[in-house]
Amino acid sequence: MLTLPDKVDVFEVGPRDGFQNIKEFIPTPAKLAVIDKLVAAGVRNLEATSFVHPKAIPQMADAAEVAATVAARHPGLRKVALVPNLTGARKAYECGIREITYVVSASEKHNLANINRTREQSLADLRGIVEAIPGLRVRLAAATSFGCPFLGRVEAGLVTSLVEAALRIGVDTVVLCDTIGVATPLQVDRLVREVRTLFPAVPLGLHLHDTQGMGLANTLAGLEAGVTMFETSVGGLGGCPFAPGAAGNTATEDMLNMLHRMGIATGIDLDAYLEAVRLVKETVQPALTGHMAYACKYENL
Amino acid sequence: MLTLPDKVDVFEVGPRDGFQNIKEFIPTPAKLAVIDKLVAAGVRNLEATSFVHPKAIPQMADAAEVAATVAARHPGLRKVALVPNLTGARKAYECGIREITYVVSASEKHNLANINRTREQSLADLRGIVEAIPGLRVRLAAATSFGCPFLGRVEAGLVTSLVEAALRIGVDTVVLCDTIGVATPLQVDRLVREVRTLFPAVPLGLHLHDTQGMGLANTLAGLEAGVTMFETSVGGLGGCPFAPGAAGNTATEDMLNMLHRMGIATGIDLDAYLEAVRLVKETVQPALTGHMAYACKYENL
Repeated sequence: MLTLPDKVDVFEVGPRDGFQNIKEFIPTPAKLAVIDKLVAAGVRNLEATSFVHPKAIPQMADAAEVAATVAARHPGLRKVALVPNLTGARKAYECGIREITYVVSASEKHNLANINRTREQSLADLRGIVEAIPGLRVRLAAATSFGCPFLGRVEAGLVTSLVEAALRIGVDTVVLCDTIGVATPLQVDRLVREVRTLFPAVPLGLHLHDTQGMGLANTLAGLEAGVTMFETSVGGLGGCPFAPGAAGNTATEDMLNMLHRMGIATGIDLDAYLEAVRLVKETVQPALTGHMAYACKYENL
Repeated sequence: MLTLPDKVDVFEVGPRDGFQNIKEFIPTPAKLAVIDKLVAAGVRNLEATSFVHPKAIPQMADAAEVAATVAARHPGLRKVALVPNLTGARKAYECGIREITYVVSASEKHNLANINRTREQSLADLRGIVEAIPGLRVRLAAATSFGCPFLGRVEAGLVTSLVEAALRIGVDTVVLCDTIGVATPLQVDRLVREVRTLFPAVPLGLHLHDTQGMGLANTLAGLEAGVTMFETSVGGLGGCPFAPGAAGNTATEDMLNMLHRMGIATGIDLDAYLEAVRLVKETVQPALTGHMAYACKYENL
């Protein structure tokens, strides 16, 4: 018998993970307009931007303006920024950001390829951030928790050792990320149960992709295993889809629909959220990979 | 803890449900070429065509030729044809078909709108077929088992009363169909458990759509509730998607990937199956809604 939680914390990552994957620069007011619609729909947790070097990701060159404006406009919002290093963390803090996402890959090879650091170096850098900026909350994004382009399947031990080291440094939240979109429900079930058994007190989130069509199946497995925090993206933007037509992140609106239809509360109004999706279609990317942007609407379901 | 079956019977419906939804006539040799690829990949259960009136569905005007050729070429294949009435059933039988799909909607209003018959009239027609052609096996496709464009949510009682009546007439298999693609995993779980409790001996299949992105999540819920027969379509063809970009049936290749990656055997080779998908893309419909036609391939997962 399927047993599910009563409510879920939706963590919207479209303005960071989604926008970051779009080549053409999105004007700052357009970014902010989407964020305003998201918040108006009831989004309470938002990864707003990324304080990376503008040469590395020109799309995020306006991180300071986005972060400061969002902080000013939406004081009640839990706003997070991705930062790759202490410089980024300091900038984020100056803009009113009090919680950061910090990415370390479970796979050493992927960490080296992605940020040119060993896992140990990445964790040492994280310790530097935590010591330099007291009171800054940290979400560990445990990248390649389920699969890696170099290793293939990633053994659970690589994930749990990373989580253990990060918790010792003082991260507040752990997010298991299916970076390349290859997790299966069975893997999600097993890994979540292992992490929850080893670290029962830590808030645990999942970041799942729909690349192979398993976004919501993996979400369901996560829910059944006790996870109540999911990172998703408006319209399914982002998540590094490689080919035209390929899906990336699980679309927030698809997850909201599934959760609400099963009686799970999110605090977000789906119809209002679909207005944000429409705005994204009109101003950011016409072809979205989420389903609810295209599905018929029926009453009394 | 997620518990799953060791193997699943994949029931391929692309050549019927998929092709039927394509406007332009697909030449008979092209249809047969796709079927040959499917069978070469290991498909053992196939809904090959539909013996409907060619004026109603011109795409299926070659039903007799398709059925007879498939029967001759692939003697070991379990081949099924959809028939709407006794005339269709007789034609199918003449072409070597020994198992039919017969559609009745759980929702009376949908049955009237779909085939201009009350449920009772449809069941009376079915009784006529069963009495006229002894030895013909029948799959009941219980349409709108989860949702209906007129009723919205469909109560389980409407489904179980239909199944009970059909079993009394002598159907061999029951397939619960999410005709408009709105089922949730919770609904699948509850309805499957209810049907299995009431009718434990009947082979039970699921026909799930990906319209709202829940195709594989619903499949997972079905697996967990004990279902081991799933109807899916090559490339995700069919399933009445209404808008460009909207998904229809759950794509067979997406389900195969999920099942195999979780250690569930199907007897089908995914790489060989993807050749059938490629042929469908080249000769039938360039834009498919399944995911595996677009997803990267990784090793050692």
